[in-house]
Amino acid sequence: MKKAKFKILVIHGPNLHLLGKRENRIYGKFTLSDLNKELKNIAKKRNISLETFQSNFEGKIVDKISESKYDFLIINPAAYTHTSVAIRDAILGTEKPTIEVHISNIFKREDFRKKSLISDVVLGIITGLGKLSYLLALQAAITFLSE
Amino acid sequence: MKKAKFKILVIHGPNLHLLGKRENRIYGKFTLSDLNKELKNIAKKRNISLETFQSNFEGKIVDKISESKYDFLIINPAAYTHTSVAIRDAILGTEKPTIEVHISNIFKREDFRKKSLISDVVLGIITGLGKLSYLLALQAAITFLSE
Amino acid sequence: MKKAKFKILVIHGPNLHLLGKRENRIYGKFTLSDLNKELKNIAKKRNISLETFQSNFEGKIVDKISESKYDFLIINPAAYTHTSVAIRDAILGTEKPTIEVHISNIFKREDFRKKSLISDVVLGIITGLGKLSYLLALQAAITFLSE
Amino acid sequence: MKKAKFKILVIHGPNLHLLGKRENRIYGKFTLSDLNKELKNIAKKRNISLETFQSNFEGKIVDKISESKYDFLIINPAAYTHTSVAIRDAILGTEKPTIEVHISNIFKREDFRKKSLISDVVLGIITGLGKLSYLLALQAAITFLSE
Amino acid sequence: MKKAKFKILVIHGPNLHLLGKRENRIYGKFTLSDLNKELKNIAKKRNISLETFQSNFEGKIVDKISESKYDFLIINPAAYTHTSVAIRDAILGTEKPTIEVHISNIFKREDFRKKSLISDVVLGIITGLGKLSYLLALQAAITFLSE
Amino acid sequence: MKKAKFKILVIHGPNLHLLGKRENRIYGKFTLSDLNKELKNIAKKRNISLETFQSNFEGKIVDKISESKYDFLIINPAAYTHTSVAIRDAILGTEKPTIEVHISNIFKREDFRKKSLISDVVLGIITGLGKLSYLLALQAAITFLSE
Amino acid sequence: MKKAKFKILVIHGPNLHLLGKRENRIYGKFTLSDLNKELKNIAKKRNISLETFQSNFEGKIVDKISESKYDFLIINPAAYTHTSVAIRDAILGTEKPTIEVHISNIFKREDFRKKSLISDVVLGIITGLGKLSYLLALQAAITFLSE
Amino acid sequence: MKKAKFKILVIHGPNLHLLGKRENRIYGKFTLSDLNKELKNIAKKRNISLETFQSNFEGKIVDKISESKYDFLIINPAAYTHTSVAIRDAILGTEKPTIEVHISNIFKREDFRKKSLISDVVLGIITGLGKLSYLLALQAAITFLSE
Amino acid sequence: MKKAKFKILVIHGPNLHLLGKRENRIYGKFTLSDLNKELKNIAKKRNISLETFQSNFEGKIVDKISESKYDFLIINPAAYTHTSVAIRDAILGTEKPTIEVHISNIFKREDFRKKSLISDVVLGIITGLGKLSYLLALQAAITFLSE
Amino acid sequence: MKKAKFKILVIHGPNLHLLGKRENRIYGKFTLSDLNKELKNIAKKRNISLETFQSNFEGKIVDKISESKYDFLIINPAAYTHTSVAIRDAILGTEKPTIEVHISNIFKREDFRKKSLISDVVLGIITGLGKLSYLLALQAAITFLSE
Amino acid sequence: MKKAKFKILVIHGPNLHLLGKRENRIYGKFTLSDLNKELKNIAKKRNISLETFQSNFEGKIVDKISESKYDFLIINPAAYTHTSVAIRDAILGTEKPTIEVHISNIFKREDFRKKSLISDVVLGIITGLGKLSYLLALQAAITFLSE
Amino acid sequence: MKKAKFKILVIHGPNLHLLGKRENRIYGKFTLSDLNKELKNIAKKRNISLETFQSNFEGKIVDKISESKYDFLIINPAAYTHTSVAIRDAILGTEKPTIEVHISNIFKREDFRKKSLISDVVLGIITGLGKLSYLLALQAAITFLSE
Repeated sequence: MKKAKFKILVIHGPNLHLLGKRENRIYGKFTLSDLNKELKNIAKKRNISLETFQSNFEGKIVDKISESKYDFLIINPAAYTHTSVAIRDAILGTEKPTIEVHISNIFKREDFRKKSLISDVVLGIITGLGKLSYLLALQAAITFLSE
Repeated sequence: MKKAKFKILVIHGPNLHLLGKRENRIYGKFTLSDLNKELKNIAKKRNISLETFQSNFEGKIVDKISESKYDFLIINPAAYTHTSVAIRDAILGTEKPTIEVHISNIFKREDFRKKSLISDVVLGIITGLGKLSYLLALQAAITFLSE
Repeated sequence: MKKAKFKILVIHGPNLHLLGKRENRIYGKFTLSDLNKELKNIAKKRNISLETFQSNFEGKIVDKISESKYDFLIINPAAYTHTSVAIRDAILGTEKPTIEVHISNIFKREDFRKKSLISDVVLGIITGLGKLSYLLALQAAITFLSE
Repeated sequence: MKKAKFKILVIHGPNLHLLGKRENRIYGKFTLSDLNKELKNIAKKRNISLETFQSNFEGKIVDKISESKYDFLIINPAAYTHTSVAIRDAILGTEKPTIEVHISNIFKREDFRKKSLISDVVLGIITGLGKLSYLLALQAAITFLSE
Repeated sequence: MKKAKFKILVIHGPNLHLLGKRENRIYGKFTLSDLNKELKNIAKKRNISLETFQSNFEGKIVDKISESKYDFLIINPAAYTHTSVAIRDAILGTEKPTIEVHISNIFKREDFRKKSLISDVVLGIITGLGKLSYLLALQAAITFLSE
Repeated sequence: MKKAKFKILVIHGPNLHLLGKRENRIYGKFTLSDLNKELKNIAKKRNISLETFQSNFEGKIVDKISESKYDFLIINPAAYTHTSVAIRDAILGTEKPTIEVHISNIFKREDFRKKSLISDVVLGIITGLGKLSYLLALQAAITFLSE
Repeated sequence: MKKAKFKILVIHGPNLHLLGKRENRIYGKFTLSDLNKELKNIAKKRNISLETFQSNFEGKIVDKISESKYDFLIINPAAYTHTSVAIRDAILGTEKPTIEVHISNIFKREDFRKKSLISDVVLGIITGLGKLSYLLALQAAITFLSE
Repeated sequence: MKKAKFKILVIHGPNLHLLGKRENRIYGKFTLSDLNKELKNIAKKRNISLETFQSNFEGKIVDKISESKYDFLIINPAAYTHTSVAIRDAILGTEKPTIEVHISNIFKREDFRKKSLISDVVLGIITGLGKLSYLLALQAAITFLSE
Repeated sequence: MKKAKFKILVIHGPNLHLLGKRENRIYGKFTLSDLNKELKNIAKKRNISLETFQSNFEGKIVDKISESKYDFLIINPAAYTHTSVAIRDAILGTEKPTIEVHISNIFKREDFRKKSLISDVVLGIITGLGKLSYLLALQAAITFLSE
Repeated sequence: MKKAKFKILVIHGPNLHLLGKRENRIYGKFTLSDLNKELKNIAKKRNISLETFQSNFEGKIVDKISESKYDFLIINPAAYTHTSVAIRDAILGTEKPTIEVHISNIFKREDFRKKSLISDVVLGIITGLGKLSYLLALQAAITFLSE
Repeated sequence: MKKAKFKILVIHGPNLHLLGKRENRIYGKFTLSDLNKELKNIAKKRNISLETFQSNFEGKIVDKISESKYDFLIINPAAYTHTSVAIRDAILGTEKPTIEVHISNIFKREDFRKKSLISDVVLGIITGLGKLSYLLALQAAITFLSE
Repeated sequence: MKKAKFKILVIHGPNLHLLGKRENRIYGKFTLSDLNKELKNIAKKRNISLETFQSNFEGKIVDKISESKYDFLIINPAAYTHTSVAIRDAILGTEKPTIEVHISNIFKREDFRKKSLISDVVLGIITGLGKLSYLLALQAAITFLSE
């Protein structure tokens, strides 16, 4: 295959390594591994390089965002959505188009989940559509990169 | 053509009749008519009936939501996102799956646009992706109806 | 029958046309039509003219309040309880005795339903007693008009 | 007379022993004794036992609610509406249907009177109708008990 | 007469059709019809076309603002001052110079009247001067249009 | 001695029976008994009847205020200053001139002590002057009664 | 010329001596001297005495308001709009009709400029119309004095 | 038995006389009498005098705290946790080590239960462990007294 | 006469030079001159030097407090009560005992008058007793200085 | 020894490695090592396996909670109590009974320490009892596991 | 000496004339005169003209800022930091680089000292370093002017 | 060279490794490496040991603060300024003098950057002066250590 035209980075925040293993009622039954495979397959078909990354460490996510070479960022900041100015600053620093995704509808949950420190520094947000939140974000990324 | 399997209603809130005619920097250059055509074309290919509706009247939107026969609702409540309990109640009353969409990233704008009276009664929210917000919502709707 | 001594106007706010057709757990099983009939029967026996009116439009409710000739107003502002300064101003403008009613106990629901823009401009409020909220309000109206 | 089918307890909170003796402009001219007599007469006709109780002590009201045998509670918590978690807990503890009443329209008075610690644990609330607040509550109680 | 050089639209919000008919203490004794005539006379003398419009419907006001051809907007949003994001968005959409007027001094009234959703998207605001609020706004409009 | 011309009631709120026995740094070394004696001596010399009353019960204080015959009330509501709407209502009910006193300067203490539910229904407040707060209040009472 | 029928005092608050010399984008190009001349000319033609006064001192403005003999006050409190209870009290003390003016639209600026300590003690407010704010205020003053 | 070395007072606040008789899901099945016996047995074995006290009256609890002779206080203020400055002041007045206990986890309940007026004047707090909250507090008290 | 043992400084804040000349309903009929004379007479009899000072300037009051030689300060900060950190700092700087007085009951007035920037740095506060507020403060000062 | 029946995990949050080495006045003199030994000894006697873990990294604590096999969690989240949604989510994800402990009484400290992001997702909380907080939590854990 | 290349203005706000004479624990032992001499000496060596100015008057500080000719402003607004919009506006008006300094660490003091009306209109802020706050600011000013 | 007399630790928080590589408009053009070299050079000349440390991990910063041997701490907590209680606690734990620095003026940015969890536990703060913020802090540190 030819060299990928674009590189997309997908970041999964804290506790998302447990997808499909806990609280299925909220997060669905698919595992993180399933999800990553599906995302990579779609990207591959479009000749796009897609890297996935999960960490429970705010610092590792900041490192990853600032060190990686990529053209588009898809991030589910999970718990750090509501508490991390450092990830916000890292996204601001990259100046790359970014989409924020959430598996569950965070507006149906605790009040503190309604405040995002990330939403106003990204292109757009997709919330509450389960695995589809990621798939649609990928599709949006591809559309943006193609334009 | 055979009878459509599903019916999707797309509602555009106040001032969206002006799409492409004002504030292009925020809302893009496409017109409401362009958008509606594109949505209908996609639906048609999937043998789905899709009705679009725009109104500047809170009451007409409530009427439409409660009177229509449809299987899925896609709504851009625009200004009413932040002020209409009546539309919230109408959505609650229909008990139909609903996706809320926004063309611009409302989290980058005035503070009062950060509070939605709708978000916690819908399935999911897609924000800030321009015309794509609608197209992805339609794709999500089709996926949900197919399952 | 002789000319009615008094005229009472009963206003039902947005989504109340769906009474008995949605969310029975919260609003009960009676329809708006059933309720209106019952109210009219009671009024008729007391030789009182009673008009009922339902609208999903804030503007129509304002029109109705300001244009009608009546001696007493019973209003269930529903969603507009929490968002309509216009209806508040219309009630202030009529300077007629008014009772605010709610079918469900709004204090058991979302936080924003605890704030009423109407309660401090009416005579009294009856909340949470289902259909009985209206019947008692009518009885109160008759008592007030008789004094 | 046969044994009463139901027992209703009516509780009057602090300062209500002064009804008719102070601030007539707000609370009306009837005395507590007048009111209690009228309530008992109505109950008697319906073969219902009705006990009335007034206290300025939060503790006595809690005692009364938790110790009495009754089928329905009508309570005007007066000043304790806004400050007593103990009375709230007592009502929660009895798990009996309860109606909260107020003689004056508390929403027309000081801001702190707009917050009730009781309203979200009762069936319904009747506010601002003077003596009629109690009479309608009694009628509602009888209707509920009859069903 | 020659074709008017400029067109000014004057919008009166909800309940203003009652001017002179209710609450004279707050709003004065002149009727809406009197006011409109006076405004038109002044405009006519300056060879300016002036259209007046009153509605109790938020949606109709949004329609009017977005559909009309005019060079300057004078608006008394009345109750919608405090609750309508839709009218705010319509004004933003027109990108025409606008003056907000109020007959009464809204800062002397209920707390919620102190928050305007309109004030920060208009050129200027004239408040509390009765009929004069409109007359001065018209004079300001003429001055701006003449420059 | 001749019949006293006036009767003054002095109420001491909760925990004031411990004066001189606890927290001397805040409240000083005099006992409640010392204080009451001093107040009575002064009153006696002026041919005024002065009754003192201490209770830890909100209800007893409400009872006392509403049942007693007196011309002037001096009250140190202590902890109830910040939590008792019932005592506020009792003072409102008596319609007698009242002075609120505090031994310590409540503005130097916890934040919640800065909010008084009593201050806006009394004639005046004397705070932070130790025993002198009472003595000056008595002097003020005498001056008012003499005018 | 005959003795002026009325005396109007125009007060300019802190930093307004710099008009036309700083931040032209916000405040326009006219100087305070230009403005004062224009105001005086208009007044003179109407046989009204008009005195202007500028100070950066809260105390001098309070002095001026309380010491001067005048029939109408036009004040641009500038920065003191948001911080001076003393000027508010001075205006309250004069009990003379007053109009508050602002050159810029304070609602488009920092949040703290949205709170005025003056607005609820004046007749009316004219904001955001540049020099015209003053001219219209003068016209309003003349109209009020003529009635 | 020899004279007890220490005396511990255990106070149960309002509605706790109903333990085991209401809302078992929240408070468990043991009665207050069971609990008191168990506490006394443990104390007896350690040669400690333990007195228990329950009241629905804020005033009686204040009386008890200030009048009793004891070395350690264990208190479940129940509803008064959130509303009683008087009990707070009584604890401050005794200057005896105190542990606050709660049977249920108050942080899982209504928002107003998250604010305690007692927690910052006690040694420590044990919350949510049912009957064990008391038993552990007693053990802590014994440990502290032994040191 | 012998040299005065103590020196008391009495400061009157902004607008108090108007005492007796405006808003008699709130501030009473006595003038500042009357009040000062009465205070000086009392002081003279006690062989105390008493200086009075009034200014509408925050800066002059700060100057006065920090430059004067005195043993006790009585201050009515009037409007500056609510806005002046500078006067607060001046009082902190002198480290002299101070009593804050108010003629009217500031708790019965606008909300912003309920917050004092001075109260927590003074010995005590006397509010709402008219001229008597000053006379009692003087008496308290004399008592403190005598001890 | 036989295989332990249960496994308890004890987590110490940030800065707790410094126990006994800093701020003894707040945290006491025992070291983390002392504490861990004491906890393990107690567990050993009850045939329970107890693992201790300290980290200054939010991410490591999340890892530990989600990766470990244990039956009960005792956690002192220290600084992360107030800022970590990630640890909250990890606890929610394990669905194991958890007790939150604090050595100092966090309610006596800075205001921000009064808000816990953990308390409403645990079984119970033990605060302010020094080393004893842990020992009692262990005892509670053993009791729960034994039932 | 040659003409100074640059002119720096150093403004000391209210109560700073007392430096070294009061509250040494907070503000240190040096006097304002000492400080000014030290600043002037440093400036002189760098051939910079440095003027110092102290006033307790908000108005004089505004005058000084707007009237002076200078290239850089160093200001310790002291109490006016938290209350003066007028000084903020004066700084905005000069459009000269400015550094705000504080001798004490204002974040360790009363809550209201945490809000600065100046900080967001200056280049930078130096807080809490005693006399050094000024010296470092001067050094920064010299560095900026040299670039 | 002789053994350094003092050791200073300089900590750079998250995203500061990107200095000079991103958002030059806000943070300037120098790199972290440039800055560190300059700081070390200055220290070396003064015979002071200076260690620099950058991390994106809150935990590593806490580790560093608590494990290092140093006499003075200079910290730019960057994003963690606003979210890290753990770093605050680490600074509290070291009990070493600390200066907080910021390159940009955080008061000119988002609202949440105005709240610092660090400022009230450090000696002083230097904000907004670019690279100079660090250089001045170092100079201050040297001055403090020399005294």
